[in-house]
Amino acid sequence: MTQATLRKGARTREAILDAALTEAASSGLSGLTFGRLAQAVGMSKSGLFAHFKSKEDLQLATLEEARQRYVDSVQRPTLSAPPGLPRLWARCQAWLSYAQNGVFGNGCFFSAVAVEFDNRPGAVRDTIAGLFATWIDELTQAVEQAQELGHVQPEVDARQVAFEINALMTAANAYHQLLGGHEPFARSWRAIRRRLQAVRVVGSPDLHGLCSDEQPALV
Amino acid sequence: MTQATLRKGARTREAILDAALTEAASSGLSGLTFGRLAQAVGMSKSGLFAHFKSKEDLQLATLEEARQRYVDSVQRPTLSAPPGLPRLWARCQAWLSYAQNGVFGNGCFFSAVAVEFDNRPGAVRDTIAGLFATWIDELTQAVEQAQELGHVQPEVDARQVAFEINALMTAANAYHQLLGGHEPFARSWRAIRRRLQAVRVVGSPDLHGLCSDEQPALV
Repeated sequence: MTQATLRKGARTREAILDAALTEAASSGLSGLTFGRLAQAVGMSKSGLFAHFKSKEDLQLATLEEARQRYVDSVQRPTLSAPPGLPRLWARCQAWLSYAQNGVFGNGCFFSAVAVEFDNRPGAVRDTIAGLFATWIDELTQAVEQAQELGHVQPEVDARQVAFEINALMTAANAYHQLLGGHEPFARSWRAIRRRLQAVRVVGSPDLHGLCSDEQPALV
Repeated sequence: MTQATLRKGARTREAILDAALTEAASSGLSGLTFGRLAQAVGMSKSGLFAHFKSKEDLQLATLEEARQRYVDSVQRPTLSAPPGLPRLWARCQAWLSYAQNGVFGNGCFFSAVAVEFDNRPGAVRDTIAGLFATWIDELTQAVEQAQELGHVQPEVDARQVAFEINALMTAANAYHQLLGGHEPFARSWRAIRRRLQAVRVVGSPDLHGLCSDEQPALV
């Protein structure tokens, strides 16, 4: 194949995954069908099969697309915050903003597909469980880094703090999905701030308003 | 209709709802079909329609059945704990036990159907949102009752504590559904205990091991 053919193939795959993510955000990963997707991107079903050999293959690629978008648009920008507690705090704010604004539509995509697949054994479920485990590990490592830098008390159980931060963030999403409004995000923000204040080493820098009583505007 | 006919009708309806709840716990409320249900209870589809006039009607009755079972088997027994902080604490333990043991199979039924229906407008979604709002209100009232009895500091925002308790409980369920194990329940238990200890009035009775470092056995 020529370079031009490969580039065209990559662009087509990108367009398909874009439509698949839009569809999955509203109907779930199990709601993806080759028929509807072919219609959405203006291709034949057999054209789609050239890119994804099965529904499961398409679901896995859609999940990977969502993961990459989350990393690029939500997680990566928080690397500009100073390492340690400020970066962890920036990460929580970025997540709440992501869930509130619905980057992929309809709140947190990963929370939704986790419930959709938690009792459907297979490669999709395994991948979602792996993403969740990685997510908790990364939050734990962020707390540990804050400990290494002297921002968080060394005796604190980092994984426990990660568990609680994840709980407070995902609950805001679930609450908002059912009842709407800004309240759950404000409550989540307040609880996480209080939790981080409680484990913070006195005298470590108060960056990004962690010790302010005012909720910063969500980006 | 005679009394005997009415009783038989009620028993049949009960058997249908029992099968519907089993089915919905594994395939979701939208996975309920009259065909499969008829097979499960050994009735004709037209026989089922005599009890439930539409799929939505069946979904709403299944939700109500789940609510009643939750109240009877999880919530009501906690009324034997003394009012105030001990009862709130008993309620949290009962919920964690319910999610861990899967009273209806597969973790918390309400958490699952909430995600299933959060972007499907209609009577089922409205009912689920109403149940969730009631759940948060009841937790808030439990904190307020503990304040009235002098167990919890009067300046505490009861609804904030309710939000956090709900977050810590439901996150344990979601975590367990994906990765299994006892860890998420132990972490949830520890976090809720720490939160209640922080708002507890010093000198109020330490009942039901709230101030113990040992996790009580989940019933």
